[in-house]
Amino acid sequence: MVSPIQEYLKTLHARYASVMDGHVADYIPELSKADPRLFGICIATRDGHVYEVGDTRHSFTIQSVSKALAYGLALEDRGEEHVLSRIGVEPSGEAFNAISLKEGTGAPFNPMINAGAIATCGQVLPKDEHSRIERILAYLGGFAGRTLDIDQAIYQSESETGHRNRAIGWLLRNFGIIDEDPHETLETYFQQCSIRVTCRDLAIMGATLANQGINPITQKRAIAAEYVDNVLGVMATCGMYDWSGEWIYRVGLPAKSGVGGGILAVLPGQLGIGVFSPPLDSQGNSLRGIRVCTDLSRELALHMLNPAATPRTAVRLAYHGGEVMARRRLPPSARETLRRCGSRIQILALQGGLIFTTFEPVLRRAMQLSDAGCLHLILDLRAVVSADAVSLRLMEELRSRLTQLGVRMVYCQPGRLCQPLMEMGVPASALFATEDAALEASEDSLLLEVTGATWRPSGSLPLEECALFRSCTAEDMILLRNELSTRKYEMGDTLIHAGESADEMLVVLSGNVEVQIRGEGQNRQRIDVLTAGMTVGEMAFLDGSPRSADVVAMDQVKCLVIPRAWFAALTETHPALKISLLHELTREISARLRQANIEVGALQRA
Amino acid sequence: MVSPIQEYLKTLHARYASVMDGHVADYIPELSKADPRLFGICIATRDGHVYEVGDTRHSFTIQSVSKALAYGLALEDRGEEHVLSRIGVEPSGEAFNAISLKEGTGAPFNPMINAGAIATCGQVLPKDEHSRIERILAYLGGFAGRTLDIDQAIYQSESETGHRNRAIGWLLRNFGIIDEDPHETLETYFQQCSIRVTCRDLAIMGATLANQGINPITQKRAIAAEYVDNVLGVMATCGMYDWSGEWIYRVGLPAKSGVGGGILAVLPGQLGIGVFSPPLDSQGNSLRGIRVCTDLSRELALHMLNPAATPRTAVRLAYHGGEVMARRRLPPSARETLRRCGSRIQILALQGGLIFTTFEPVLRRAMQLSDAGCLHLILDLRAVVSADAVSLRLMEELRSRLTQLGVRMVYCQPGRLCQPLMEMGVPASALFATEDAALEASEDSLLLEVTGATWRPSGSLPLEECALFRSCTAEDMILLRNELSTRKYEMGDTLIHAGESADEMLVVLSGNVEVQIRGEGQNRQRIDVLTAGMTVGEMAFLDGSPRSADVVAMDQVKCLVIPRAWFAALTETHPALKISLLHELTREISARLRQANIEVGALQRA
Repeated sequence: MVSPIQEYLKTLHARYASVMDGHVADYIPELSKADPRLFGICIATRDGHVYEVGDTRHSFTIQSVSKALAYGLALEDRGEEHVLSRIGVEPSGEAFNAISLKEGTGAPFNPMINAGAIATCGQVLPKDEHSRIERILAYLGGFAGRTLDIDQAIYQSESETGHRNRAIGWLLRNFGIIDEDPHETLETYFQQCSIRVTCRDLAIMGATLANQGINPITQKRAIAAEYVDNVLGVMATCGMYDWSGEWIYRVGLPAKSGVGGGILAVLPGQLGIGVFSPPLDSQGNSLRGIRVCTDLSRELALHMLNPAATPRTAVRLAYHGGEVMARRRLPPSARETLRRCGSRIQILALQGGLIFTTFEPVLRRAMQLSDAGCLHLILDLRAVVSADAVSLRLMEELRSRLTQLGVRMVYCQPGRLCQPLMEMGVPASALFATEDAALEASEDSLLLEVTGATWRPSGSLPLEECALFRSCTAEDMILLRNELSTRKYEMGDTLIHAGESADEMLVVLSGNVEVQIRGEGQNRQRIDVLTAGMTVGEMAFLDGSPRSADVVAMDQVKCLVIPRAWFAALTETHPALKISLLHELTREISARLRQANIEVGALQRA
Repeated sequence: MVSPIQEYLKTLHARYASVMDGHVADYIPELSKADPRLFGICIATRDGHVYEVGDTRHSFTIQSVSKALAYGLALEDRGEEHVLSRIGVEPSGEAFNAISLKEGTGAPFNPMINAGAIATCGQVLPKDEHSRIERILAYLGGFAGRTLDIDQAIYQSESETGHRNRAIGWLLRNFGIIDEDPHETLETYFQQCSIRVTCRDLAIMGATLANQGINPITQKRAIAAEYVDNVLGVMATCGMYDWSGEWIYRVGLPAKSGVGGGILAVLPGQLGIGVFSPPLDSQGNSLRGIRVCTDLSRELALHMLNPAATPRTAVRLAYHGGEVMARRRLPPSARETLRRCGSRIQILALQGGLIFTTFEPVLRRAMQLSDAGCLHLILDLRAVVSADAVSLRLMEELRSRLTQLGVRMVYCQPGRLCQPLMEMGVPASALFATEDAALEASEDSLLLEVTGATWRPSGSLPLEECALFRSCTAEDMILLRNELSTRKYEMGDTLIHAGESADEMLVVLSGNVEVQIRGEGQNRQRIDVLTAGMTVGEMAFLDGSPRSADVVAMDQVKCLVIPRAWFAALTETHPALKISLLHELTREISARLRQANIEVGALQRA
């Protein structure tokens, strides 16, 4: 199926393909040879999906688009304050080739005008035996996700005709903005402008800036995260020559254009756009490029200053311990206590990226829960994609304040956040590998608080105390003891194998067993834990289906074995006993179904 | 519990409270009387929560902050193109009181310099018997969410000393940027600058701009949504005088400052910030204000150009029809068919705000599902907060393309989106009030496609075909017919009342019944639907608990009644029959528990 987005881009391309306004740059002979009909549009998403239409794979020279990216390299080489002392970041209100140097210091107004870009070039260091231009090539290649090269013919042409830029170079040398003979800096600058890229490259470069500096396709970092906002900052205020104010006003995307016909635009945090069309307008911006970006911004609602949707609360699901319980079987009385008091355990399942704005509502919610009597708060981090330093700090402050109030807050399934949380001093006791483990700990602790005793049976249970035999008579008990045998398992033994036929049902008399299903590969997922007094494997036993899961001993386990043949024969020999057993089984399965229905309800609550 | 965010703001306030750098504005005598120690910081979230510390309720004059908001009123009165023809939007690179008029036209460079602001004032229309200044007062009051007034002493002082602004006014008149005698425009402008606000007002004004123009506290629209990006656009490029470039570079928030000591900053789509501190730096910006905003941006990671988290896919949950089924009871064979073929029904539960970037991944996911053989796609819109025109259009294009491929796509629980979807031509047959209704329709249609017949029993079922009696003998059937009676219900009759004791169990022989629980108020929620052949009320009947839900006849219903006394007596009189009935009940309840567990697993999948 063809994506409607692809179709939309085709329509947009067709809308302007025949527009023949504007003029191909002719200030150097080589550029004037560009075919004015060439026209490509490309959008790259933050997760690396690329939509493209038209001449998106045609190479052209990057020209001034390089100024924005090379500025990132200068920042990485010299640091922000040093670079700011040489090159300003104020829009000049003048054309790109104006010699706008600040009175007194001679610092160029910003790195997007030629003077600023040449000064930027002078800030890049030759390093590790690589010349400046090699480093710039490699740096820009990181944004594009491929090896880039230089159009030598254009470079020659740039160099032969770059008299005005040479004058700028010498003025910069005069003011001490460039420290050495400007010749080499200027040649590097001419080569930088002559790097060959495609429209697709521009979109991916943009997506890299949208993705905190990580190329979304190669997944390699192209620019240190801390400088992304600086690069986008100068693009936002100075990227489109003396049309920058109007660009932000109308299009609302940090962008940079080049006289080669390229425009690179970025919706911060979201996507990159590349447009390529050589004919330029009077400000030197690609004419079709401006129109395409204006339409894209309006028709796809991409203006960064008026977002219709923004990160909201990170809470994905909220429920309490009376609704959702750990995947384990509890005795009916414990289950009832939890059903009644479970709201003292609250679970907030978070999602997406945690930042100030998405975590702040979580904080408020947690405070409300604490005020309402919550004693255990579980933050489920499973669906959290990332968390910045701010949200991590707020999370930990929340935890320490709650601790002071007697509320125990723990994290479950922190994944990648485990390391940073531990570095912030979160004790291992507040980190759980799974929500189940966290729930289990909270439930045990709550049950102890409420009932004053552990719910766990200790040692071996007599048959009378097993739920299945609850309504058995004294004679029934004698019969059970005489006719049924017990079986012992060591830790790790498998009591029941998935797929086998269900010829018996077991009653755990001591120890614990875990019910597991096999996931992908060797991965086993726990779906239930049972302890002394509980019946195992009764569902397949009763409905005759094959075993649906493995049951494994978690420690030394003793079970009473109820064979199918014996149970079948009861209909004839001791029907009242069979009725009593069936009745108890139905009661227990019904109770679990009721609980499961409550869970489904809680989980479906939007 | 005190919020850590509140605590953080207190620390930030303390950090700068004793800094005594900068000078209170003294170009008019009244302003120089401001107490330099006054200092307030306020953050207002998009949902109207306000954090504040220090002198946030102290009144001061709004001064140049008013320029940004009044520009919105001019746009609303005259339209974008008209206003742009009189006032540019390019940064001038010069100080606020420079007389930067464009060569030729005489248009001020932008509305944030005095010339542009006076021209903006001239664009506001007296209307409905209200003078310009009354309209400006009311307009700004909409942003603040309260009635504002003018500091008459400051106004007098402004008016008495505003010689340079009068010169600008006459120059604008000379170029035809102002159409009439500038006297009245200038007096309006002086009054506008003298409007009294608080630091809290500024934060709420900012939150209003962050919230697409709707005041988050009053929920009233302060500015048309279409002009929000224009106002923020001029703030972004020209809001902080000739420090605007550096502000975006370092702080990264559209903002406007005033010589009264106020700064209003906006994180688009997210929050508003107000800072108030009268001492100014050499550019005329509040000195503590700049420092506070710089720290806030860095320490809370608010720089708009490098967001750590952004709207991601709108998919909240994804599951298929073999995992989650409609809240109704299906005959075992139909349930099995769905378990096997249910992946041809796919449910995408969406959430948050739908915009291009959040809906684009939904589109891709839907295309993959279609390629993988999905025949029914349900978009659950219950948790969707908003959808812009772009995402609505893409949704409908997706639906029409899928229809061509033979995939039926429907929406459920569209809420507020119902109207816009219907206006786009979505037929009523593709809109469902609940996910259940959508699932039901998809399941019925899939079952028909797969099995070639409807699963619904028609007419009255003989006892033999009821699941409960599946393993009964011929003699059992005779006994049942002789000893048990039937009962009829009309549509709307209640078969079972929640809370009552469970003295009987019913088997539906014809018609349909709905199981309902009572929610808030009179609201009833369907949790199950049963049809002929199924057993009703068996769980409470077996475990002796009171009825947990109402059961209501959906049409004419005939039931077989199984009284508790009769069932109890069976143990003595016909134990084999009782065993057979209990066995079937357990089988059915087990099957439902298995299904519920699958649902819980699917819903907990992050």
